[in-house]
Amino acid sequence: METIINENQRRIEVCVSPNLFPVYFKNKDCIVVVIDIFRATSAICTAFENGVKGIIPVLTIEEARKYQDTGMLAAAERSGEIVEGFDIGNSPFSYMKPEMKGKEVVLTTTNGTKAINYAKDASEVVIGSFLNLKAICDYLEKKDKDVILLCSGWKDRFNLEDTLFAGAVVYHLKKNERFIGLSDSSIAASCLYDQAKGDLNEFLKNSSHRNRLARLNLEKDIEYCLQENIIELVPILKGNTLKVEV
Amino acid sequence: METIINENQRRIEVCVSPNLFPVYFKNKDCIVVVIDIFRATSAICTAFENGVKGIIPVLTIEEARKYQDTGMLAAAERSGEIVEGFDIGNSPFSYMKPEMKGKEVVLTTTNGTKAINYAKDASEVVIGSFLNLKAICDYLEKKDKDVILLCSGWKDRFNLEDTLFAGAVVYHLKKNERFIGLSDSSIAASCLYDQAKGDLNEFLKNSSHRNRLARLNLEKDIEYCLQENIIELVPILKGNTLKVEV
Repeated sequence: METIINENQRRIEVCVSPNLFPVYFKNKDCIVVVIDIFRATSAICTAFENGVKGIIPVLTIEEARKYQDTGMLAAAERSGEIVEGFDIGNSPFSYMKPEMKGKEVVLTTTNGTKAINYAKDASEVVIGSFLNLKAICDYLEKKDKDVILLCSGWKDRFNLEDTLFAGAVVYHLKKNERFIGLSDSSIAASCLYDQAKGDLNEFLKNSSHRNRLARLNLEKDIEYCLQENIIELVPILKGNTLKVEV
Repeated sequence: METIINENQRRIEVCVSPNLFPVYFKNKDCIVVVIDIFRATSAICTAFENGVKGIIPVLTIEEARKYQDTGMLAAAERSGEIVEGFDIGNSPFSYMKPEMKGKEVVLTTTNGTKAINYAKDASEVVIGSFLNLKAICDYLEKKDKDVILLCSGWKDRFNLEDTLFAGAVVYHLKKNERFIGLSDSSIAASCLYDQAKGDLNEFLKNSSHRNRLARLNLEKDIEYCLQENIIELVPILKGNTLKVEV
């Protein structure tokens, strides 16, 4: 992007796959919003809403097992299903159980925890989902930095639901004249959200991951993850652990 | 993508950046349509329409110079401008000159020739632009193979005009029941084209490369490149040279 931006304006870039992150990550003094709507980032927001104290995102199942061996609650998902030997995957409903309140959890997922790892050198990494859309937008406006909306995608592919959420953030932030530096991917994502916003589930009816989850009988998860603004907090990466400010 | 496809159905994938090509290029027995609307693939189509015999796409300015030293016509563009020492860049109007008729041309551009190089191991590589949109769609229907629509982007970023053209191809092919395997990126691109098709130039008014070209006084090129179906041929890569079937 070579849009002429003055120093009072902030860029919003949408990175549609973790593979493209190095192409967009030129200014480290930015906030990266990690997005994995179905279901890692929706589950993370839900966990904090239900009193989980911290979440340690790790890349591999082996790392998750090591934490599990120390007695920590451990969650692992691959290709939409809970990994053998773990009690929890990335269904948001798993994180609503009262016994998780006040606990730390280690988490590894197919796409989301990989994206968090890509982003870790940014000055801030936060977790976004439709559930905390307004909270994310308010946070980004308050912080007033360049923003990269990092879609986790599906195994490095473009993915419709993550791009739609990125578009939702752009759609709201572009009303603020400071966030005027829209990249082409931001324009596209915002336009898609504008078309989809009346009925996100209907818009996604032919999308690949929605249908993958539907085949696994996870319609309830899909409907839950597509609700806007039912959670008001913003999970932030502090060291190797996701936390919320209290 | 894990959409269930039977053997009589063909996939259409949109790859929004050359960086993502390895992620989509799993079945080599496919046709890759290389897209660089502003302006390499529009210029290539125009060159053949005006009687150019062959175009050798090369990656570097040095390679183009070597061909030039043998007396061949040579074209080189970087960041929208003709490279010093070359007579031609990638403005389609440069390729309408009568003296180019029957000639071979070597060509290197910022994004387009790089994308052609990425695609070269596919069973077929063809060149698409709005100018030959219908010809490309007819060709793909006739060939009946899986299709990857490869957007050249801008320096590996997502780019609006290339994605719109990819969307135009999906928009037309999806009416054919054999092309039912739409990836998420195909759904998104088709949806964007559907919104933009009434006035492509208006839709692109805030896009980065359109504005980059406008600053270089290339409005005439932009308008030319956004015309649909004024050229009926399909340039195809044969060995290291683009040609059209006669």
